[in-house]
Amino acid sequence: MGPFITFEGPEGSGKSTHIRLLAEQLRARGREVLVTREPGGTPLCEAIRGLLQHDTADESPTPRAEALLFFASRAQLVETTIRPALRRGVWVLCDRYADSTFAYQGHGRGFPLDALQAINAFATGALVPDLTLLLDIDAAASRQRLAARQAAASGGDRFERESDAFHDRLRRGFLDLATREPARFRIVESGRAIASVAEDVWSAVATRFAAALDGG
Amino acid sequence: MGPFITFEGPEGSGKSTHIRLLAEQLRARGREVLVTREPGGTPLCEAIRGLLQHDTADESPTPRAEALLFFASRAQLVETTIRPALRRGVWVLCDRYADSTFAYQGHGRGFPLDALQAINAFATGALVPDLTLLLDIDAAASRQRLAARQAAASGGDRFERESDAFHDRLRRGFLDLATREPARFRIVESGRAIASVAEDVWSAVATRFAAALDGG
Repeated sequence: MGPFITFEGPEGSGKSTHIRLLAEQLRARGREVLVTREPGGTPLCEAIRGLLQHDTADESPTPRAEALLFFASRAQLVETTIRPALRRGVWVLCDRYADSTFAYQGHGRGFPLDALQAINAFATGALVPDLTLLLDIDAAASRQRLAARQAAASGGDRFERESDAFHDRLRRGFLDLATREPARFRIVESGRAIASVAEDVWSAVATRFAAALDGG
Repeated sequence: MGPFITFEGPEGSGKSTHIRLLAEQLRARGREVLVTREPGGTPLCEAIRGLLQHDTADESPTPRAEALLFFASRAQLVETTIRPALRRGVWVLCDRYADSTFAYQGHGRGFPLDALQAINAFATGALVPDLTLLLDIDAAASRQRLAARQAAASGGDRFERESDAFHDRLRRGFLDLATREPARFRIVESGRAIASVAEDVWSAVATRFAAALDGG
């Protein structure tokens, strides 16, 4: 099985940038890499993403329906894309995975973690990442990055419009999850220059997967 | 709270006909009635129905994703439509509900019932019907009805294309669910003339809700 690495953190924490940089590093070393994201990654998952961002139906999902749509998208992505790639020995890098549900729907919206964990186990067939990189950033720095991004593009999605208080609750949620599973998580302080953050990401990956990176 | 009645049974068991007839009976007695169906009933739920029947995205849901899409649709329908109606004292008649998931995804596809029940409790906030009418029909009679319906319309949806063996597994699943909760279920033998079946449906409703139907 190939290594399964997830990137987690609030909006504006640099996940997509650092996934891209890590994928480049791995490919430069001759590794086959699959980069994917949640919710999304297949035509059905992208359609579910559309429902979550209420682009499609003129009706917002309730918090419970929202959580279940995330799980449905994850189930589809794991079974059609992530597991087959891992079986072929490919490195899979995923932008958000189960911990985002635990942080957003658990700590953020107040659903009990044990209920979410049980549904997640059903959705994923209990597929747990080998390594989760938590990009940690405070609300002020995140807001600044999102403002820059939104000035460049359009209005951001619905999660990007959440308040600083919600960001803080999420951030504490992610840190709490990392504390519960120290063997799986690496926390990377992300409010720094991109090169420094990328160096820490690479160092975490190189340490965790020393054997897999050795030779070849 | 108004009474919450669900209709369950395999395809071709006459659910939509008997829901319509029961709604007419209740309305003739001056009761306010909401008729709805799963998956569907709101714009978002109808969009999810489209994904389940893969009209929308050019990709079939995996069995786990399929189950979770049904739960997402149910969560949305319960919170936006069923609970508010029940709170106003309306009689809610729903074409399929949780037992369909237990029969199709549990008995039919082999997912463990306890996992499905836990997810269902999350999705519905533990909303259980007051009465579930199980319209029981054998594979041969069901196939005959579906053939007539398909000759009249187009090709039927993907569930209607399942085999007789699958129908039998479902049917046994529904009967097993009814055996576990005899106080909630009434089994109505549905391979008979519509008028006889409708009489039994009405008798079950009149018995269960004698107090609510008394007076007015």
